Amino acid sequence: VDTDLTDPAGDDLLAAATDLGTALRGLVAAGVATTVDAAELRAAAAAAREITGRLAVSLRTRDQLPPVDDLAQGRRTYNPVGGDGNPLAPPLRVRAEGDGVVAEVTLGLVYEGPPTLVHGGVSALMMDQLLAVATADAGLWGMTARLELDYRRPVPLEVPLVLRARISENTGRKTIATGTIARADDPDQTLLEARGVFVTPRPATSDAGREPDRKGRGGQPTDATAPAG
Amino acid sequence: VDTDLTDPAGDDLLAAATDLGTALRGLVAAGVATTVDAAELRAAAAAAREITGRLAVSLRTRDQLPPVDDLAQGRRTYNPVGGDGNPLAPPLRVRAEGDGVVAEVTLGLVYEGPPTLVHGGVSALMMDQLLAVATADAGLWGMTARLELDYRRPVPLEVPLVLRARISENTGRKTIATGTIARADDPDQTLLEARGVFVTPRPATSDAGREPDRKGRGGQPTDATAPAG
Repeated sequence: VDTDLTDPAGDDLLAAATDLGTALRGLVAAGVATTVDAAELRAAAAAAREITGRLAVSLRTRDQLPPVDDLAQGRRTYNPVGGDGNPLAPPLRVRAEGDGVVAEVTLGLVYEGPPTLVHGGVSALMMDQLLAVATADAGLWGMTARLELDYRRPVPLEVPLVLRARISENTGRKTIATGTIARADDPDQTLLEARGVFVTPRPATSDAGREPDRKGRGGQPTDATAPAG
Repeated sequence: VDTDLTDPAGDDLLAAATDLGTALRGLVAAGVATTVDAAELRAAAAAAREITGRLAVSLRTRDQLPPVDDLAQGRRTYNPVGGDGNPLAPPLRVRAEGDGVVAEVTLGLVYEGPPTLVHGGVSALMMDQLLAVATADAGLWGMTARLELDYRRPVPLEVPLVLRARISENTGRKTIATGTIARADDPDQTLLEARGVFVTPRPATSDAGREPDRKGRGGQPTDATAPAG
Protein backbone atom coordinates (compact mmCIF):
# COMPACT_ATOMS: atom_id res chain seq x y z
CA VAL A 1 0.00 0.00 0.00
CA ASP A 2 1.17 3.53 -0.75
CA THR A 3 -0.18 5.22 2.35
CA ASP A 4 -1.04 4.15 5.85
CA LEU A 5 -4.74 4.58 6.57
CA THR A 6 -3.91 5.58 10.16
CA ASP A 7 -1.69 8.38 8.80
CA PRO A 8 -4.01 10.34 6.52
CA ALA A 9 -1.77 13.43 6.44
CA GLY A 10 1.20 11.29 5.43
CA ASP A 11 3.40 12.70 8.21
CA ASP A 12 4.68 9.28 9.20
CA LEU A 13 5.39 8.36 5.59
CA LEU A 14 7.27 11.63 5.08
CA ALA A 15 9.32 11.05 8.23
CA ALA A 16 10.19 7.55 7.01
CA ALA A 17 11.13 8.82 3.54
CA THR A 18 13.36 11.42 5.16
CA ASP A 19 14.90 8.72 7.37
CA LEU A 20 15.71 6.61 4.31
CA GLY A 21 17.09 9.60 2.40
CA THR A 22 19.33 10.45 5.35
CA ALA A 23 20.52 6.87 5.71
CA LEU A 24 21.28 6.54 2.00
CA ARG A 25 23.07 9.91 1.99
CA GLY A 26 25.34 8.53 4.70
CA LEU A 27 25.83 5.28 2.81
CA VAL A 28 26.78 7.11 -0.40
CA ALA A 29 29.27 9.25 1.55
CA ALA A 30 30.83 6.16 3.12
CA GLY A 31 30.89 4.35 -0.25
CA VAL A 32 32.86 7.16 -1.86
CA ALA A 33 35.33 7.61 1.01
CA THR A 34 35.85 4.04 2.19
CA THR A 35 39.22 2.33 1.86
CA VAL A 36 38.09 -1.18 2.84
CA ASP A 37 39.28 -4.06 0.65
CA ALA A 38 37.67 -5.50 -2.47
CA ALA A 39 35.90 -8.32 -0.63
CA GLU A 40 34.27 -5.85 1.75
CA LEU A 41 33.24 -3.58 -1.15
CA ARG A 42 31.59 -6.55 -2.86
CA ALA A 43 29.83 -7.63 0.34
CA ALA A 44 28.47 -4.10 0.71
CA ALA A 45 27.31 -4.12 -2.93
CA ALA A 46 25.47 -7.42 -2.39
CA ALA A 47 23.79 -6.10 0.75
CA ALA A 48 22.79 -2.91 -1.07
CA ARG A 49 21.21 -4.96 -3.87
CA GLU A 50 19.13 -6.82 -1.29
CA ILE A 51 17.69 -3.53 -0.02
CA THR A 52 17.07 -2.39 -3.59
CA GLY A 53 15.04 -5.52 -4.22
CA ARG A 54 12.80 -4.78 -1.25
CA LEU A 55 12.22 -1.17 -2.28
CA ALA A 56 11.68 -2.04 -5.93
CA VAL A 57 8.60 -4.19 -5.29
CA SER A 58 6.55 -1.01 -5.77
CA LEU A 59 7.91 1.88 -7.83
CA ARG A 60 6.22 4.98 -9.19
CA THR A 61 6.66 5.92 -12.83
CA ARG A 62 7.84 9.24 -14.24
CA ASP A 63 4.24 10.43 -14.48
CA GLN A 64 3.34 9.75 -10.84
CA LEU A 65 4.14 12.29 -8.15
CA PRO A 66 5.67 10.89 -4.93
CA PRO A 67 2.97 10.09 -2.34
CA VAL A 68 4.88 12.23 0.19
CA ASP A 69 4.91 15.35 -1.99
CA ASP A 70 2.49 18.20 -1.51
CA LEU A 71 2.48 20.66 -4.38
CA ALA A 72 0.16 23.06 -2.57
CA GLN A 73 2.78 23.25 0.20
CA GLY A 74 5.63 23.40 -2.31
CA ARG A 75 7.01 20.18 -0.84
CA ARG A 76 9.22 18.22 -3.25
CA THR A 77 10.76 15.49 -1.13
CA TYR A 78 13.07 14.11 -3.81
CA ASN A 79 14.47 17.32 -5.30
CA PRO A 80 18.13 16.59 -6.17
CA VAL A 81 19.37 19.76 -4.44
CA GLY A 82 17.12 20.43 -1.49
CA GLY A 83 15.11 17.24 -1.04
CA ASP A 84 15.53 15.37 2.25
CA GLY A 85 14.49 12.16 0.56
CA ASN A 86 17.04 12.37 -2.26
CA PRO A 87 20.46 11.00 -1.24
CA LEU A 88 22.09 13.13 -3.95
CA ALA A 89 20.92 16.37 -2.34
CA PRO A 90 23.50 17.98 0.01
CA PRO A 91 20.65 18.85 1.18
CA LEU A 92 20.49 22.59 0.76
CA ARG A 93 18.36 24.26 3.44
CA VAL A 94 17.11 27.58 2.12
CA ARG A 95 15.62 30.32 4.30
CA ALA A 96 14.54 33.90 3.71
CA GLU A 97 16.94 36.59 4.96
CA GLY A 98 16.92 40.31 4.20
CA ASP A 99 15.69 40.84 0.67
CA GLY A 100 16.70 37.39 -0.52
CA VAL A 101 17.42 33.81 0.50
CA VAL A 102 20.41 32.17 2.14
CA ALA A 103 21.62 28.60 2.62
CA GLU A 104 24.49 27.06 4.52
CA VAL A 105 26.08 23.84 3.36
CA THR A 106 29.26 21.83 3.86
CA LEU A 107 30.11 19.49 1.00
CA GLY A 108 32.01 16.21 1.39
CA LEU A 109 34.01 13.99 -0.95
CA VAL A 110 30.89 12.94 -2.87
CA TYR A 111 30.88 16.39 -4.51
CA GLU A 112 34.59 16.55 -5.34
CA GLY A 113 35.90 17.80 -8.70
CA PRO A 114 39.58 18.71 -8.55
CA PRO A 115 41.20 17.18 -5.44
CA THR A 116 39.96 18.90 -2.24
CA LEU A 117 37.62 21.20 -4.23
CA VAL A 118 33.93 21.23 -5.04
CA HIS A 119 33.13 20.17 -8.63
CA GLY A 120 32.33 23.27 -10.67
CA GLY A 121 29.12 21.67 -11.89
CA VAL A 122 27.98 21.04 -8.32
CA SER A 123 28.28 24.76 -7.59
CA ALA A 124 26.17 25.39 -10.70
CA LEU A 125 23.60 22.81 -9.56
CA MET A 126 23.21 24.46 -6.16
CA MET A 127 23.03 28.00 -7.51
CA ASP A 128 20.40 27.11 -10.13
CA GLN A 129 18.22 25.90 -7.28
CA LEU A 130 18.94 28.88 -5.02
CA LEU A 131 18.28 31.50 -7.71
CA ALA A 132 15.03 29.75 -8.61
CA VAL A 133 13.93 29.68 -4.98
CA ALA A 134 14.70 33.39 -4.61
CA THR A 135 12.61 34.09 -7.70
CA ALA A 136 9.71 31.94 -6.53
CA ASP A 137 9.87 33.40 -3.02
CA ALA A 138 9.47 36.88 -4.47
CA GLY A 139 6.30 35.71 -6.23
CA LEU A 140 8.04 35.92 -9.62
CA TRP A 141 8.34 32.21 -10.33
CA GLY A 142 9.45 31.22 -13.80
CA MET A 143 11.40 28.68 -15.79
CA THR A 144 15.19 29.08 -15.95
CA ALA A 145 15.97 30.59 -19.35
CA ARG A 146 19.64 31.35 -18.79
CA LEU A 147 22.22 30.65 -16.11
CA GLU A 148 25.65 32.33 -15.85
CA LEU A 149 28.39 31.40 -13.41
CA ASP A 150 31.68 33.18 -12.78
CA TYR A 151 34.20 31.10 -10.90
CA ARG A 152 36.36 33.62 -9.03
CA ARG A 153 38.20 31.31 -6.63
CA PRO A 154 38.17 27.57 -5.87
CA VAL A 155 35.32 26.38 -3.63
CA PRO A 156 36.70 24.07 -0.91
CA LEU A 157 35.25 20.76 0.29
CA GLU A 158 34.52 20.17 3.98
CA VAL A 159 34.38 23.89 4.75
CA PRO A 160 31.09 25.55 5.78
CA LEU A 161 29.83 27.59 2.82
CA VAL A 162 27.20 30.30 2.66
CA LEU A 163 25.10 30.70 -0.49
CA ARG A 164 22.99 33.77 -1.13
CA ALA A 165 20.52 34.79 -3.84
CA ARG A 166 18.17 37.72 -4.44
CA ILE A 167 16.14 39.32 -7.19
CA SER A 168 18.06 42.06 -8.97
CA GLU A 169 15.61 43.01 -11.72
CA ASN A 170 12.08 42.33 -12.91
CA THR A 171 10.56 43.56 -16.15
CA GLY A 172 7.25 42.01 -17.09
CA ARG A 173 7.59 38.24 -17.35
CA LYS A 174 11.38 38.32 -17.05
CA THR A 175 13.17 38.23 -13.70
CA ILE A 176 16.90 38.33 -13.08
CA ALA A 177 18.28 36.83 -9.87
CA THR A 178 21.87 36.99 -8.70
CA GLY A 179 23.75 35.07 -6.06
CA THR A 180 27.10 34.15 -4.57
CA ILE A 181 29.02 31.40 -2.83
CA ALA A 182 31.50 32.26 -0.07
CA ARG A 183 33.14 30.57 2.89
CA ALA A 184 31.02 31.03 6.02
CA ASP A 185 34.13 32.21 7.87
CA ASP A 186 34.98 34.75 5.14
CA PRO A 187 31.58 35.78 3.76
CA ASP A 188 32.80 38.94 2.00
CA GLN A 189 35.25 37.16 -0.29
CA THR A 190 33.13 35.89 -3.17
CA LEU A 191 34.21 32.52 -4.55
CA LEU A 192 31.52 32.29 -7.22
CA GLU A 193 28.96 34.66 -8.72
CA ALA A 194 25.78 33.43 -10.37
CA ARG A 195 23.11 35.14 -12.44
CA GLY A 196 19.91 33.56 -13.64
CA VAL A 197 17.20 34.73 -16.01
CA PHE A 198 13.76 33.34 -15.24
CA VAL A 199 10.77 33.70 -17.53
CA THR A 200 7.19 33.32 -16.38
CA PRO A 201 5.17 31.47 -19.04
CA ARG A 202 2.37 33.51 -20.62
CA PRO A 203 -0.91 33.17 -18.68
CA ALA A 204 -2.75 31.88 -21.74
CA THR A 205 -0.54 28.81 -21.86
CA SER A 206 0.12 28.30 -18.19
CA ASP A 207 -2.89 29.04 -16.01
CA ALA A 208 -2.65 25.53 -14.65
CA GLY A 209 1.08 25.79 -14.18
CA ARG A 210 1.41 28.33 -11.40
CA GLU A 211 4.60 27.91 -9.47
CA PRO A 212 4.49 27.70 -5.67
CA ASP A 213 6.96 29.86 -3.78
CA ARG A 214 8.97 28.57 -0.83
CA LYS A 215 6.02 29.18 1.44
CA GLY A 216 3.68 27.14 -0.68
CA ARG A 217 1.57 29.76 -2.42
CA GLY A 218 0.67 28.79 -5.96
CA GLY A 219 0.67 25.70 -8.11
CA GLN A 220 3.06 23.45 -9.94
CA PRO A 221 6.72 22.99 -8.96
CA THR A 222 9.81 23.78 -10.99
CA ASP A 223 13.44 23.60 -9.92
CA ALA A 224 12.57 26.36 -7.49
CA THR A 225 10.48 24.16 -5.31
CA ALA A 226 12.30 23.39 -2.10
CA PRO A 227 11.02 21.45 0.88
CA ALA A 228 8.73 23.76 2.80
CA GLY A 229 10.98 25.91 4.96
CA VAL B 1 44.36 -2.97 4.22
CA ASP B 2 43.88 -0.57 1.35
CA THR B 3 45.14 -2.79 -1.43
CA ASP B 4 45.37 -6.50 -2.03
CA LEU B 5 48.98 -7.64 -2.35
CA THR B 6 47.95 -10.18 -4.99
CA ASP B 7 46.42 -7.32 -7.03
CA PRO B 8 49.30 -4.88 -7.43
CA ALA B 9 47.68 -3.01 -10.33
CA GLY B 10 44.52 -2.50 -8.30
CA ASP B 11 42.30 -3.92 -11.05
CA ASP B 12 40.31 -6.06 -8.65
CA LEU B 13 39.85 -3.17 -6.22
CA LEU B 14 38.68 -0.93 -9.07
CA ALA B 15 36.21 -3.57 -10.24
CA ALA B 16 34.87 -3.90 -6.70
CA ALA B 17 34.57 -0.11 -6.29
CA THR B 18 32.68 0.02 -9.59
CA ASP B 19 30.44 -2.82 -8.42
CA LEU B 20 29.61 -0.94 -5.22
CA GLY B 21 29.03 2.32 -7.11
CA THR B 22 26.66 0.52 -9.47
CA ALA B 23 24.79 -1.18 -6.63
CA LEU B 24 24.40 2.09 -4.70
CA ARG B 25 23.27 3.91 -7.85
CA GLY B 26 20.51 1.31 -8.16
CA LEU B 27 19.64 1.64 -4.48
CA VAL B 28 19.41 5.43 -4.69
CA ALA B 29 17.15 5.13 -7.75
CA ALA B 30 14.88 2.66 -5.93
CA GLY B 31 14.87 4.83 -2.80
CA VAL B 32 13.64 7.86 -4.74
CA ALA B 33 11.00 5.98 -6.74
CA THR B 34 9.70 3.47 -4.21
CA THR B 35 6.14 3.60 -2.94
CA VAL B 36 6.48 0.98 -0.18
CA ASP B 37 5.04 1.84 3.23
CA ALA B 38 6.69 3.66 6.13
CA ALA B 39 7.71 0.46 7.94
CA GLU B 40 9.48 -0.83 4.85
CA LEU B 41 11.23 2.53 4.33
CA ARG B 42 12.48 2.40 7.92
CA ALA B 43 13.64 -1.20 7.56
CA ALA B 44 15.58 -0.19 4.44
CA ALA B 45 17.11 2.76 6.28
CA ALA B 46 18.25 0.51 9.13
CA ALA B 47 19.79 -1.99 6.70
CA ALA B 48 21.55 0.86 4.86
CA ARG B 49 23.02 2.11 8.14
CA GLU B 50 24.43 -1.36 8.79
CA ILE B 51 26.30 -1.28 5.49
CA THR B 52 27.51 2.25 6.22
CA GLY B 53 28.99 1.06 9.48
CA ARG B 54 30.99 -1.64 7.71
CA LEU B 55 32.32 0.75 5.07
CA ALA B 56 33.11 3.47 7.59
CA VAL B 57 35.64 1.39 9.54
CA SER B 58 38.27 2.84 7.19
CA LEU B 59 37.72 6.18 5.47
CA ARG B 60 40.09 8.44 3.57
CA THR B 61 40.24 12.14 4.39
CA ARG B 62 39.85 15.06 2.00
CA ASP B 63 43.60 15.13 1.47
CA GLN B 64 43.97 11.48 0.46
CA LEU B 65 43.33 10.39 -3.11
CA PRO B 66 41.23 7.24 -3.55
CA PRO B 67 43.43 4.12 -3.77
CA VAL B 68 41.68 3.20 -7.03
CA ASP B 69 42.46 6.49 -8.76
CA ASP B 70 45.27 6.90 -11.23
CA LEU B 71 46.05 10.52 -12.04
CA ALA B 72 48.55 9.58 -14.74
CA GLN B 73 45.72 7.73 -16.49
CA GLY B 74 43.23 10.49 -15.75
CA ARG B 75 41.15 8.02 -13.75
CA ARG B 76 38.90 9.68 -11.16
CA THR B 77 36.67 6.86 -9.92
CA TYR B 78 34.46 9.03 -7.70
CA ASN B 79 33.85 12.02 -9.98
CA PRO B 80 30.24 13.12 -9.35
CA VAL B 81 29.41 13.25 -13.06
CA GLY B 82 31.42 10.54 -14.78
CA GLY B 83 32.74 8.36 -11.97
CA ASP B 84 31.62 4.72 -11.93
CA GLY B 85 32.23 4.59 -8.19
CA ASN B 86 30.10 7.62 -7.34
CA PRO B 87 26.39 6.76 -7.00
CA LEU B 88 25.50 10.39 -7.80
CA ALA B 89 27.07 10.17 -11.25
CA PRO B 90 24.56 9.31 -14.03
CA PRO B 91 27.35 8.14 -15.04
CA LEU B 92 28.24 10.14 -18.09
CA ARG B 93 30.35 8.12 -20.57
CA VAL B 94 32.33 10.52 -22.73
CA ARG B 95 34.04 9.56 -25.98
CA ALA B 96 35.82 11.44 -28.72
CA GLU B 97 33.83 11.97 -31.93
CA GLY B 98 34.63 14.27 -34.85
CA ASP B 99 36.31 17.40 -33.54
CA GLY B 100 34.82 17.10 -30.06
CA VAL B 101 33.36 14.75 -27.48
CA VAL B 102 29.95 13.14 -27.15
CA ALA B 103 28.05 11.36 -24.37
CA GLU B 104 24.76 9.53 -24.22
CA VAL B 105 22.75 9.40 -21.05
CA THR B 106 19.23 8.67 -19.85
CA LEU B 107 18.27 10.30 -16.56
CA GLY B 108 15.77 8.86 -14.09
CA LEU B 109 13.67 10.30 -11.26
CA VAL B 110 16.74 10.95 -9.11
CA TYR B 111 17.56 13.91 -11.37
CA GLU B 112 14.05 15.38 -11.53
CA GLY B 113 13.38 19.11 -11.20
CA PRO B 114 9.92 20.06 -12.48
CA PRO B 115 7.73 16.96 -12.78
CA THR B 116 8.89 14.68 -15.65
CA LEU B 117 11.82 17.02 -16.47
CA VAL B 118 15.53 17.07 -15.71
CA HIS B 119 16.51 19.61 -13.00
CA GLY B 120 18.10 22.62 -14.69
CA GLY B 121 21.08 22.39 -12.36
CA VAL B 122 21.69 18.78 -13.34
CA SER B 123 21.98 19.83 -16.99
CA ALA B 124 24.50 22.46 -15.86
CA LEU B 125 26.42 19.86 -13.83
CA MET B 126 26.72 17.54 -16.82
CA MET B 127 27.70 20.26 -19.28
CA ASP B 128 30.39 21.67 -16.98
CA GLN B 129 31.98 18.24 -17.00
CA LEU B 130 31.57 17.70 -20.75
CA LEU B 131 33.00 21.09 -21.74
CA ALA B 132 35.95 20.52 -19.42
CA VAL B 133 36.61 17.10 -20.92
CA ALA B 134 36.50 18.56 -24.46
CA THR B 135 39.02 21.20 -23.39
CA ALA B 136 41.32 18.70 -21.72
CA ASP B 137 41.03 16.29 -24.65
CA ALA B 138 42.23 19.03 -26.99
CA GLY B 139 45.30 19.48 -24.80
CA LEU B 140 44.02 22.88 -23.63
CA TRP B 141 43.14 21.93 -20.05
CA GLY B 142 42.26 24.74 -17.71
CA MET B 143 40.12 25.71 -14.74
CA THR B 144 36.51 26.71 -15.43
CA ALA B 145 36.39 30.52 -15.26
CA ARG B 146 32.88 31.02 -16.60
CA LEU B 147 29.93 28.83 -17.51
CA GLU B 148 26.85 29.97 -19.47
CA LEU B 149 23.74 27.91 -20.09
CA ASP B 150 20.79 28.74 -22.33
CA TYR B 151 17.74 26.63 -21.66
CA ARG B 152 15.87 26.50 -24.99
CA ARG B 153 13.39 23.72 -24.29
CA PRO B 154 12.64 21.38 -21.35
CA VAL B 155 14.96 18.36 -21.04
CA PRO B 156 12.89 15.21 -20.44
CA LEU B 157 13.56 12.43 -17.93
CA GLU B 158 13.76 8.80 -19.05
CA VAL B 159 14.50 9.74 -22.65
CA PRO B 160 17.89 8.98 -24.22
CA LEU B 161 19.82 12.25 -24.50
CA VAL B 162 22.92 13.11 -26.51
CA LEU B 163 25.38 15.66 -25.16
CA ARG B 164 28.09 17.20 -27.32
CA ALA B 165 30.99 19.57 -26.69
CA ARG B 166 33.87 20.98 -28.70
CA ILE B 167 36.47 23.72 -28.60
CA SER B 168 35.30 26.85 -30.41
CA GLU B 169 38.15 29.23 -29.69
CA ASN B 170 41.60 29.34 -28.14
CA THR B 171 43.68 32.46 -27.56
CA GLY B 172 46.71 32.01 -25.39
CA ARG B 173 45.74 30.64 -22.01
CA LYS B 174 42.01 31.08 -22.62
CA THR B 175 39.88 28.43 -24.29
CA ILE B 176 36.18 28.59 -25.08
CA ALA B 177 34.22 25.36 -25.40
CA THR B 178 30.61 25.06 -26.50
CA GLY B 179 28.13 22.23 -26.25
CA THR B 180 24.52 21.14 -26.51
CA ILE B 181 21.95 18.73 -25.11
CA ALA B 182 19.39 17.15 -27.44
CA ARG B 183 17.15 14.10 -27.52
CA ALA B 184 18.95 11.18 -29.14
CA ASP B 185 15.92 10.64 -31.39
CA ASP B 186 15.86 14.32 -32.44
CA PRO B 187 19.51 15.37 -32.32
CA ASP B 188 19.11 18.54 -34.40
CA GLN B 189 16.64 20.21 -32.05
CA THR B 190 18.80 21.77 -29.36
CA LEU B 191 17.27 21.69 -25.87
CA LEU B 192 20.14 23.44 -24.12
CA GLU B 193 23.25 25.34 -25.21
CA ALA B 194 26.33 25.67 -23.02
CA ARG B 195 29.47 27.74 -23.27
CA GLY B 196 32.46 27.50 -20.96
CA VAL B 197 35.56 29.62 -20.59
CA PHE B 198 38.60 27.72 -19.36
CA VAL B 199 41.83 29.36 -18.29
CA THR B 200 45.14 27.54 -18.09
CA PRO B 201 47.06 28.69 -15.01
CA ARG B 202 50.35 30.50 -15.77
CA PRO B 203 53.29 28.07 -16.08
CA ALA B 204 55.20 29.85 -13.32
CA THR B 205 52.55 28.99 -10.78
CA SER B 206 51.38 25.69 -12.12
CA ASP B 207 54.18 23.55 -13.50
CA ALA B 208 53.21 20.84 -11.03
CA GLY B 209 49.53 21.23 -11.88
CA ARG B 210 49.34 19.97 -15.43
CA GLU B 211 45.92 18.63 -16.29
CA PRO B 212 45.57 15.19 -17.82
CA ASP B 213 43.32 14.91 -20.86
CA ARG B 214 40.80 12.11 -21.29
CA LYS B 215 43.57 9.85 -22.57
CA GLY B 216 45.73 10.44 -19.55
CA ARG B 217 48.43 12.75 -20.83
CA GLY B 218 49.53 15.27 -18.25
CA GLY B 219 49.23 15.75 -14.53
CA GLN B 220 46.67 16.79 -11.97
CA PRO B 221 42.92 16.40 -12.41
CA THR B 222 40.22 19.06 -12.50
CA ASP B 223 36.52 18.67 -13.22
CA ALA B 224 37.62 17.62 -16.68
CA THR B 225 39.04 14.33 -15.55
CA ALA B 226 36.76 11.52 -16.58
CA PRO B 227 37.29 7.80 -16.07
CA ALA B 228 39.76 6.64 -18.73
CA GLY B 229 38.09 5.42 -21.91
